[in-house]
Amino acid sequence: MQNMLRDRQDAQGHMFHDYFKGEEAYEIVERDDGYFDYGNPALYFAQYNDWAEAERKAVNRVRGRVLDIGCGAGRHSLYLQEQGFDVVGIDNSPLAVETCKLRGLRDVRLLPINDISPELGVFDTVLMLGNNFGLFGSIDGGRRLLRRLERITSSDAAIIGETLDPHNTVVPEHLEYHKFNKRRGRLPGQVRIRVRYKKYVTPWFDYLFVSKEEMLDLLKGTGWRAKEFIDGEGPIYIAMIAKSNGEVPGGPVT
Amino acid sequence: MQNMLRDRQDAQGHMFHDYFKGEEAYEIVERDDGYFDYGNPALYFAQYNDWAEAERKAVNRVRGRVLDIGCGAGRHSLYLQEQGFDVVGIDNSPLAVETCKLRGLRDVRLLPINDISPELGVFDTVLMLGNNFGLFGSIDGGRRLLRRLERITSSDAAIIGETLDPHNTVVPEHLEYHKFNKRRGRLPGQVRIRVRYKKYVTPWFDYLFVSKEEMLDLLKGTGWRAKEFIDGEGPIYIAMIAKSNGEVPGGPVT
Repeated sequence: MQNMLRDRQDAQGHMFHDYFKGEEAYEIVERDDGYFDYGNPALYFAQYNDWAEAERKAVNRVRGRVLDIGCGAGRHSLYLQEQGFDVVGIDNSPLAVETCKLRGLRDVRLLPINDISPELGVFDTVLMLGNNFGLFGSIDGGRRLLRRLERITSSDAAIIGETLDPHNTVVPEHLEYHKFNKRRGRLPGQVRIRVRYKKYVTPWFDYLFVSKEEMLDLLKGTGWRAKEFIDGEGPIYIAMIAKSNGEVPGGPVT
Repeated sequence: MQNMLRDRQDAQGHMFHDYFKGEEAYEIVERDDGYFDYGNPALYFAQYNDWAEAERKAVNRVRGRVLDIGCGAGRHSLYLQEQGFDVVGIDNSPLAVETCKLRGLRDVRLLPINDISPELGVFDTVLMLGNNFGLFGSIDGGRRLLRRLERITSSDAAIIGETLDPHNTVVPEHLEYHKFNKRRGRLPGQVRIRVRYKKYVTPWFDYLFVSKEEMLDLLKGTGWRAKEFIDGEGPIYIAMIAKSNGEVPGGPVT
């Protein structure tokens, strides 16, 4: 979702906001091959103890000033804020930002990933958990953004990015979709989707799932290098990405 | 859903079948104004003790030979079969029928509501719970079907039909939809929907929600008359409908 969303487009934001108010809510994801999926809003509000082990491990590697890209309802940012970190959450959804504020996140900004600029200051950790590595969207767009992130981060900064290996599936509809993507010159896991909730619907946007190999390729020439992978359940993994000459922070892996 | 569904159209059936196999499943309902809703498949498998009180009361009024129209995953039919009733379940979804068979329902047939005929034999109770009064679809179609049901039922038969009063809402999108329906000459609660699950999608079909007044009007000239309403939660109610000269069965209202 590359642009700031208007209210009618703010499907996820309305879902977050309704769920936060205690109303029934649900996330519907439509893929451009007509595949419809459902998402449970509770996941976006899960507390640290309910996160997958890989996410808990990854968050324990955070240090310094943090940029949480696509902060959603703020589950990672709020946890880090509690731990004393200086966190800036950004999202392109007005009601996601509003929900984060209502939940007590102090620095959250309405900002699409493409509008990230040096005005935000310098960061030591860039957080893209919850599959948010996918926000890079494409090889070209991703490389452009990675180079931009390189310029607004400290020399020993890390990007902590979560995705899943799209090839690690036996679901016929997904395998068929990968072929469809290859035929039209896209990465197999470059899904084109839009989110729906009630009558709210986002514009179509690209969300990128990559294998470890594909990620290594994507990072080439960007000034970043994957140093370590934290494997999650099934196809899920989290990449610890450092600057080409830097090292990823170690730390208490619990 | 007036016709027998082909496999690619059998969204609910695939949902039932997957859920029964223990897989994640979900129901997505798309209305023709672009409103998307979510349904929890667990509701279709709920056991008697988890049903709403109105449904438990209504089911206790069943007697004789039963036709369960739109039997779905079989929750009502299976309960009645256990209680010793002679039940025929019908549905236009091949995988709903298959799921009912797997769950042990002895007489379940792949049959759209429009294909109900005297070949099924004579019934004492026609069950349309779980909003299935809506399967009548429209005033004209409903009256046609009601007259047909009149001919294949005993003189003291009852239709037990559940719906909800669509006017009993404050949801702006629904109120707007009622106006949209009135402008195009439809009953406010005559929703045009299709069900989606993964890449499965039913054809568009009409599903009818009526107030008690609208129901009384619909029944005119059909040989049927609403004798009693069992109020459920919020806008939900269940009508006990008898033949014009008959009475609805009383019985243990628990």
